[in-house]
Amino acid sequence: MIKVGIVGGTGYTGVELLRILAAHPEVRLTSITSRKEDGLPVADMYPSLRGRVSLKFNAPDKADLTECDVVFFATPHGVAMAQARELVDAGVKVIDLAADFRLKDVAKFAQWYGMPHSCPDLLNEAAYGLPELNRDAIKSARIIGNPGCYPTTMQLGFYPLLKAGIIDAGNLIADCKSGVSGAGRKAEMGLLFSEVSDSFKAYSVSGHRHNPETLEQLQKMSSTQVGLIFTPHLVPLIRGMHSTLYARLNANIDNAALQALFETAYQNEPFVDVMPFGSHPETRSTRGSNTLRIALHRPENGSTLVILVVQDNLMKGASGQAVQCMNLMFGLPETCGLTQLPVLP
Amino acid sequence: MIKVGIVGGTGYTGVELLRILAAHPEVRLTSITSRKEDGLPVADMYPSLRGRVSLKFNAPDKADLTECDVVFFATPHGVAMAQARELVDAGVKVIDLAADFRLKDVAKFAQWYGMPHSCPDLLNEAAYGLPELNRDAIKSARIIGNPGCYPTTMQLGFYPLLKAGIIDAGNLIADCKSGVSGAGRKAEMGLLFSEVSDSFKAYSVSGHRHNPETLEQLQKMSSTQVGLIFTPHLVPLIRGMHSTLYARLNANIDNAALQALFETAYQNEPFVDVMPFGSHPETRSTRGSNTLRIALHRPENGSTLVILVVQDNLMKGASGQAVQCMNLMFGLPETCGLTQLPVLP
Amino acid sequence: MIKVGIVGGTGYTGVELLRILAAHPEVRLTSITSRKEDGLPVADMYPSLRGRVSLKFNAPDKADLTECDVVFFATPHGVAMAQARELVDAGVKVIDLAADFRLKDVAKFAQWYGMPHSCPDLLNEAAYGLPELNRDAIKSARIIGNPGCYPTTMQLGFYPLLKAGIIDAGNLIADCKSGVSGAGRKAEMGLLFSEVSDSFKAYSVSGHRHNPETLEQLQKMSSTQVGLIFTPHLVPLIRGMHSTLYARLNANIDNAALQALFETAYQNEPFVDVMPFGSHPETRSTRGSNTLRIALHRPENGSTLVILVVQDNLMKGASGQAVQCMNLMFGLPETCGLTQLPVLP
Amino acid sequence: MIKVGIVGGTGYTGVELLRILAAHPEVRLTSITSRKEDGLPVADMYPSLRGRVSLKFNAPDKADLTECDVVFFATPHGVAMAQARELVDAGVKVIDLAADFRLKDVAKFAQWYGMPHSCPDLLNEAAYGLPELNRDAIKSARIIGNPGCYPTTMQLGFYPLLKAGIIDAGNLIADCKSGVSGAGRKAEMGLLFSEVSDSFKAYSVSGHRHNPETLEQLQKMSSTQVGLIFTPHLVPLIRGMHSTLYARLNANIDNAALQALFETAYQNEPFVDVMPFGSHPETRSTRGSNTLRIALHRPENGSTLVILVVQDNLMKGASGQAVQCMNLMFGLPETCGLTQLPVLP
Repeated sequence: MIKVGIVGGTGYTGVELLRILAAHPEVRLTSITSRKEDGLPVADMYPSLRGRVSLKFNAPDKADLTECDVVFFATPHGVAMAQARELVDAGVKVIDLAADFRLKDVAKFAQWYGMPHSCPDLLNEAAYGLPELNRDAIKSARIIGNPGCYPTTMQLGFYPLLKAGIIDAGNLIADCKSGVSGAGRKAEMGLLFSEVSDSFKAYSVSGHRHNPETLEQLQKMSSTQVGLIFTPHLVPLIRGMHSTLYARLNANIDNAALQALFETAYQNEPFVDVMPFGSHPETRSTRGSNTLRIALHRPENGSTLVILVVQDNLMKGASGQAVQCMNLMFGLPETCGLTQLPVLP
Repeated sequence: MIKVGIVGGTGYTGVELLRILAAHPEVRLTSITSRKEDGLPVADMYPSLRGRVSLKFNAPDKADLTECDVVFFATPHGVAMAQARELVDAGVKVIDLAADFRLKDVAKFAQWYGMPHSCPDLLNEAAYGLPELNRDAIKSARIIGNPGCYPTTMQLGFYPLLKAGIIDAGNLIADCKSGVSGAGRKAEMGLLFSEVSDSFKAYSVSGHRHNPETLEQLQKMSSTQVGLIFTPHLVPLIRGMHSTLYARLNANIDNAALQALFETAYQNEPFVDVMPFGSHPETRSTRGSNTLRIALHRPENGSTLVILVVQDNLMKGASGQAVQCMNLMFGLPETCGLTQLPVLP
Repeated sequence: MIKVGIVGGTGYTGVELLRILAAHPEVRLTSITSRKEDGLPVADMYPSLRGRVSLKFNAPDKADLTECDVVFFATPHGVAMAQARELVDAGVKVIDLAADFRLKDVAKFAQWYGMPHSCPDLLNEAAYGLPELNRDAIKSARIIGNPGCYPTTMQLGFYPLLKAGIIDAGNLIADCKSGVSGAGRKAEMGLLFSEVSDSFKAYSVSGHRHNPETLEQLQKMSSTQVGLIFTPHLVPLIRGMHSTLYARLNANIDNAALQALFETAYQNEPFVDVMPFGSHPETRSTRGSNTLRIALHRPENGSTLVILVVQDNLMKGASGQAVQCMNLMFGLPETCGLTQLPVLP
Repeated sequence: MIKVGIVGGTGYTGVELLRILAAHPEVRLTSITSRKEDGLPVADMYPSLRGRVSLKFNAPDKADLTECDVVFFATPHGVAMAQARELVDAGVKVIDLAADFRLKDVAKFAQWYGMPHSCPDLLNEAAYGLPELNRDAIKSARIIGNPGCYPTTMQLGFYPLLKAGIIDAGNLIADCKSGVSGAGRKAEMGLLFSEVSDSFKAYSVSGHRHNPETLEQLQKMSSTQVGLIFTPHLVPLIRGMHSTLYARLNANIDNAALQALFETAYQNEPFVDVMPFGSHPETRSTRGSNTLRIALHRPENGSTLVILVVQDNLMKGASGQAVQCMNLMFGLPETCGLTQLPVLP
């Protein structure tokens, strides 16, 4: 059994880790920390876990995380990089669900997250935790920077096209829509039910932290300069993310070949579902599961492709992906503990 | 492996059965019928099942249901009683999620469902499928009448009090609220998003089919005449049911003893969670799981008790309960295939 | 033109006052205060008011409220009673949307609101602002305690029955459901979209501040002791309130007479709609309007009456009612500025 | 007083017309038809109109529409063109909220709506009912083709840019999101609460009827060939539309000049609100009102513009716009009866 610790388990990615790991056959939950909730049984905060999780929150200093085999950080940006050194030195693997180990470019990190990176050497060795595109590095990594939710959809949606070199990489558009849980569990006015429900809006249109992360990764797939317009929107639903991607073809290719490109790229992937050409995936078809679904469209058979990508932002977009990485790091089957079927309706 | 057939798998209780049974370790899905969708892969109608359910819908006449070990009816009222005889004679067990085998009183059945009962003898032998209150009968039954969603909450909420004889059985009030999926998957104007969302209403206040069913069962628990006012309401949420029950104490008893009454009654029940006295259970704490939660209140320490009961109407209120019955009928552990944790948020 | 000031205009009752008053033909908005938002144009906080409200928020000390004819307090409990004296002395009328002038019993006020009442004499002269039951007092009042949202529904729902003396006043039950805006615009975890949406729960079942207020008013209508069980619930919708009231008849009366009782009681009321016997009012049928709707039910023609009451909690339940009071106080037609039709769908 | 008839008043655009017109100071509602609901008081179907609309639905043959001054068609496509001739000949003005008089190209009409156009001569004289871009023609028209909801946002969003000739007209992208009421009041499975709520999806990505309508209009603004990728999505909210428009600049222009371009274009428009550069308009800021809001963004000061446009799809996107046209046709102030403030929250 893998001994697992969670730092910062009171947010949505934290409780989602608990939902997954409490039923994971190869895991023993050992420790979960929260300075503020020290001593509180986890199930008192989240009654959904009553009878299933008996742990209490511990203040960080009381939690002996170095006894764990792996520690997940479900914390604000900046926490993981402050504690990673000690854990790694003690032989504990680290999976950070925040941004500390995502961006290799420390200048960009400082610019977008408003703090200098405190351990560039660890950042350097960290693996970017998107298994479909970086599986080998993840297997042998000591530290994982778990991808952002939006970047996961953009990378898996553009990847086969960029790799094939058949689109204009300099003019990509990603019009993305996220459920409200993606903003985290924070007592902010803008996230209140009465502010968000029965409404729709874009946000951070002029610049969002997931843009540099995505660009850095997309550039690896392309021999030409990548340019990306990324527009996030807030949808009045709890969990679910829908990315509508636009790319211009710069090669002659028919629709069957396009579809084959995607099906081949993901044919062995347990968590990527390439739907029939022209499908309209719904976010709810992934609710509570680790599956991401993709469908291709080509309006009027023209030169612009529309790629639709859906996922559960807390699963494949966050905690499910993190557990997928953990499985790889510990030599388990990649789907272990991640076979929850989507909850529909 | 138990060979399972489903009649009428296109509705919400049907797709919920599929979600459970596709991951049930002791079940092989053998047949699923739909006259209208004959030949259509189930996963084409419900993309959430892509890669997990490979069955196609079959027209009823093509489905050899007599080869199954058990057949679930997720159909409108009246269908199961028309087909049960043939199945039972062939040694197939029958679990009806509609009302055909719930009410023992055939006159009441005819009155409330607008049709005569076609097989009163089978009705007579059928077991009422509420395991917590009727476990032994279920184990040996050939036919199960799976309880209605509302009646499940009312029975489990009132049971310890009625059995102890400490409330005024003649004046029970159940103010119940259901998510919209409880109305089924029907193209009706009143169930449209734009009609139901951002609104709230009562319905069928002057009389609802679940009233006679509940009364028949509550009467078994009480030595005095039971009277029940039952008021259903429609809540703008997909799955979730909250029953607020009112009962007047007619005995001297303190709150600790009241709490103990409930905790004792359900101490060995894997799917009934008695929360601490004074708790406010949320429906979402049961979303996607088979757990029902109960909490007691006694405003101003007076003589009126308020019992709060929540469940997922498609799980403990329908398909989860049906699988719980199946487990009992086939000698499996009662929780087999039913350990899904609630999806929260 | 009536010169109107608003203290604390950043919350939901505040912005609703602005929506009404910006279009009120006899009103000139003169001043709106917010310590925190001093200098901010109101329409910057609420873009819905762009082009319609040109006022800026002022810090309280800069706002010359004594120049107003009337000041609305859309503030937390305790603010109005601290400022009322000065305003009243300057000849300004005061309408408090919080609880400072609702409860005549100062001991009860202290008990439920956790602070002593600072001006019992003003409290003593204040009128309870429910026009349908207290119109004359409102007309001549200098200070109005605007009713709570729940109490409005309970009083108007029980009034004709209590006045007629035909129900058991000692055993009233009110099972009430409120949209989330009723909790106000506060950055609290429990009001987040991801906590509230797609779920349902009761709260404060063991005791809620609106209980003593309602009791005090109901007692005025009844010659016998009133007893009330009041159970509030939170519904995932923005605005809307549905109260399901239960009362036991203690007199022989047929349904036509019951219906006539209500129709007569409210025949001249522009904002109370008695629907046909057996109707099921939806909250959305009042969305954005000042109308409250009532319908009667009598399950199985028994002795228990079920009274359904719906309103928009921000209109008839708060700001609309406050403007209705203002109209009366200034001799305007009661419906002036309050003829908005419900927004449906 | 203008005598107004409505054909097909049972749908959402119909009831929205009723909400507006019942309070319009210059209108007398004379007739409303529905074959199916003949004899039913309108307020029985829509209790929100109780006490405000006393009309009954009439079967079409009983309604003497030729007595009206103007008739609105809130019907499925094909109805208005069948009845327009008789009305126009009788001197009655016609405003069609469906598509019969939108597309000048009859071949395109036949292709997209699956029926030949039955009165091309009337189509030829009909005015396209977008007042901001076609005011003069509307004033003198006998027949109005009221714009589609999506096309309204796309035209008003792209217009200042196309007219100035500073964008690449051949490569426009419109990623649009609509509330569910936009699909109309139809008992279809795909519009059920339990199908649509808590989910998000694109639809008709490969081709939608509003594409040819929009193209025809956009082409009028541009001297070069217009190309448009239009992707509609369904949002789980009742009313509200958000269009995210992408255009590539092909001229040197700074942001202040861009903003000025829009502000100048719409400076005298009562229903178009150009927000400050970089704003994020929310759909709820238009809920229930006839205002459309626009905001400009230019990510990283690059060559791609992002234009955000929001409106209430039932108001500026349908019925409000139709009444705006009526006001123009009858020489009334354009805002008459259309000054409802947005309902927020």
